[in-house]
Amino acid sequence: MKSYKQMTKDELNAEKALLEKRIEEYKAMNLSLNMTRGKPSVEQLELSREMYKGLEDSDFMSASGDVRNYGIPTGLVETRELFAEWLGVDKDLVYVGNGSSLNLMFDTLVRAVIFGEVDSPKPWGQVEGKKWLCPVPGYDRHFKVTETLGFELIPVPLNENGPDMDVVEELVKDPTVLGMWSVPCYTNPDGFVYSEEVCRRLASMKTAAPDFRLFWDNAYSVHHLYEDEALQGKLPEIISLCAECGNPNRVYEFASTSKITFASSGISCFTSSKENFDAAKKILAVQTIGANKITQYAHYKFMPNLDAVKEQMKKHADILRPKFELTLDILDKEITGTESASWHKPMGGYFISVNTLPGTAKAVIAKCNDLGVAFTPAGATFPYGKDPQDSNIRIAPSFPTLEDINKAVEVFAVCVKLSAVEKLLAE
Amino acid sequence: MKSYKQMTKDELNAEKALLEKRIEEYKAMNLSLNMTRGKPSVEQLELSREMYKGLEDSDFMSASGDVRNYGIPTGLVETRELFAEWLGVDKDLVYVGNGSSLNLMFDTLVRAVIFGEVDSPKPWGQVEGKKWLCPVPGYDRHFKVTETLGFELIPVPLNENGPDMDVVEELVKDPTVLGMWSVPCYTNPDGFVYSEEVCRRLASMKTAAPDFRLFWDNAYSVHHLYEDEALQGKLPEIISLCAECGNPNRVYEFASTSKITFASSGISCFTSSKENFDAAKKILAVQTIGANKITQYAHYKFMPNLDAVKEQMKKHADILRPKFELTLDILDKEITGTESASWHKPMGGYFISVNTLPGTAKAVIAKCNDLGVAFTPAGATFPYGKDPQDSNIRIAPSFPTLEDINKAVEVFAVCVKLSAVEKLLAE
Repeated sequence: MKSYKQMTKDELNAEKALLEKRIEEYKAMNLSLNMTRGKPSVEQLELSREMYKGLEDSDFMSASGDVRNYGIPTGLVETRELFAEWLGVDKDLVYVGNGSSLNLMFDTLVRAVIFGEVDSPKPWGQVEGKKWLCPVPGYDRHFKVTETLGFELIPVPLNENGPDMDVVEELVKDPTVLGMWSVPCYTNPDGFVYSEEVCRRLASMKTAAPDFRLFWDNAYSVHHLYEDEALQGKLPEIISLCAECGNPNRVYEFASTSKITFASSGISCFTSSKENFDAAKKILAVQTIGANKITQYAHYKFMPNLDAVKEQMKKHADILRPKFELTLDILDKEITGTESASWHKPMGGYFISVNTLPGTAKAVIAKCNDLGVAFTPAGATFPYGKDPQDSNIRIAPSFPTLEDINKAVEVFAVCVKLSAVEKLLAE
Repeated sequence: MKSYKQMTKDELNAEKALLEKRIEEYKAMNLSLNMTRGKPSVEQLELSREMYKGLEDSDFMSASGDVRNYGIPTGLVETRELFAEWLGVDKDLVYVGNGSSLNLMFDTLVRAVIFGEVDSPKPWGQVEGKKWLCPVPGYDRHFKVTETLGFELIPVPLNENGPDMDVVEELVKDPTVLGMWSVPCYTNPDGFVYSEEVCRRLASMKTAAPDFRLFWDNAYSVHHLYEDEALQGKLPEIISLCAECGNPNRVYEFASTSKITFASSGISCFTSSKENFDAAKKILAVQTIGANKITQYAHYKFMPNLDAVKEQMKKHADILRPKFELTLDILDKEITGTESASWHKPMGGYFISVNTLPGTAKAVIAKCNDLGVAFTPAGATFPYGKDPQDSNIRIAPSFPTLEDINKAVEVFAVCVKLSAVEKLLAE
């Protein structure tokens, strides 16, 4: 297909007419499809159906004690070990929480806001004009947390190897820049994986704030789409890397089983340096009696070690891979060559990120909505919901059926192309 | 038995010798008993063993949707209805959380500290010298929450009908007094029940702070020891009472199933006015993906309505009642008449509170510990762990066996009496 950018007005008008005809056909179909939701499909949820089976015949005993009673506030040793094996960290520095790792992130920030970090000159709540770095495009709910807690959000371009480190290293010279979000393995939504060099620069960079923190949301670290290890995202273990680089307290790492077992009804964790962990534990001992240990126990019975987690993830991949590949195939077939959009083929994670011709993302979404096909609002992947390029759109192929994806992505591609043509004609 | 206070020195010395002889006998027994833990016994936990049974054959569908996936952030409608029926409130104003209601209380206070209440002149974090009322004796973990969040703790005497309202009404004339803890039904540790008059005065009193808040921890509202309803604690519904009195936003109410199903692995809730609830929900939508809905679903299947909760509580009472009665019998047999201690017979809850001769509580605990019998440290029921009278001791009869209680409480009573005698001889 010829690039729209090289077409004459006449050629563009001809293409427009063709696309409009297709739009009319879709309109007649009265579609009602939803591609907004980055959530597991029912088929994926079924993989964990038997998680609680036979629990009534168990002894409810962990090596930490009776899981049905009070106590064990940092979590069962078995689940701490599971996360430790998974993340390559010390089990004694793992806190196991309830289903939402976002909740652990929010609470970690709240502690910094009210009490400060171990190396803070003062609580973050007292830092005027405090700022937070947000690699973009990124995860809207991350951004919303720091926005709500009073940080100014500073976007940082995200490349194939991670955030643009030249930009980051410049920005952290400002002492009011207190931290940064990161989804280092299969970034949300692009599916990029931070390179070892980027990780090392993040771990070693000089920051004006002595208490600068990386929030390392390792949400997708075992969420590979392909079994071939050469294709799988792999990160250096960031906590020891920071320690090696002389910044032992720089990072909080998070993970959860939300997209492994049950979404928002799994288990989550955070881990950090001993100093950070001990400070957090002291406040957590006041905040809560502890997380649900029956849930932890059932998870441990269901997935006693990392191998079991990996087995479960292969089953997820078998369900997800065709959906990703179908989406990419349609995009490729419809769009490649037109230069009306670009995207990256993710090897894991939950999303495909499409960059439309700048200035057209909102128009694309509106056109799709008109046809009964819902996509995540344009801008959602940027701080304050504002994409300065009006270009990025997040596609979530996990929840719909292959049949729905087939139709929805085709509609999407046609809308992308029509919006591009309209934009070029108006220039 | 003759009152120690009316004994001559000679009589006291004779009593002392008798008690010391008994202490020597206990010493020879090499006891190792623990009466510190306000937690359910294994027998009680067994009542919920089958909570998750058959879950693998269910459809995992709530009227709110598939409980295994994302969504439904305020909780399943079925569990919201359960708490609403239980507390006599509007289900749409019930937020269902994870196992720890303490966590909901902490987070509610955090919101007030960072963002302020709907009627706050400024966030509570900015209120210099902020204070919190603490009915005493009370629950140490409540006190620790407000202490940690920067409040000065002001003790208020707790009587059989609730906090001394003359004192409370005087204290709330101070605009830096921002709230009060309450365990209104079966106070921890005395087992008192707030009278309707006290509730009404709390709901209607004028407070200098426009954003004064009652934290109404209804932890034991269905935790009766006796089936006879005339003996059961009963409260007016506090949220509508506050609204009636022109203070609609005054109260946050909390409850949980920690002592109904699994301790710290149950479900919890808070409820409040619509204005408070909506403000909280807005922050909670940022803080968390939501609580564990599988746990909620299993609870609903296990206890679909308040009648089922009450049935479960009868079974708990059958296990707890003999333990309470044995404790009280021993105290009565050993101590009544000596005036070396006083206590109230609770009709529900988890504790028995003993007031020893002022100035002897620490000595009693130390003596018990020497004999291998652990009791909650003296002072634990007061802000900052300091009982100005050195008199109050909390006994937790739920966890130990009847046999252990028999021995431990006897040891306790002898230590109470010996400490009193020693104190009187020293005067």
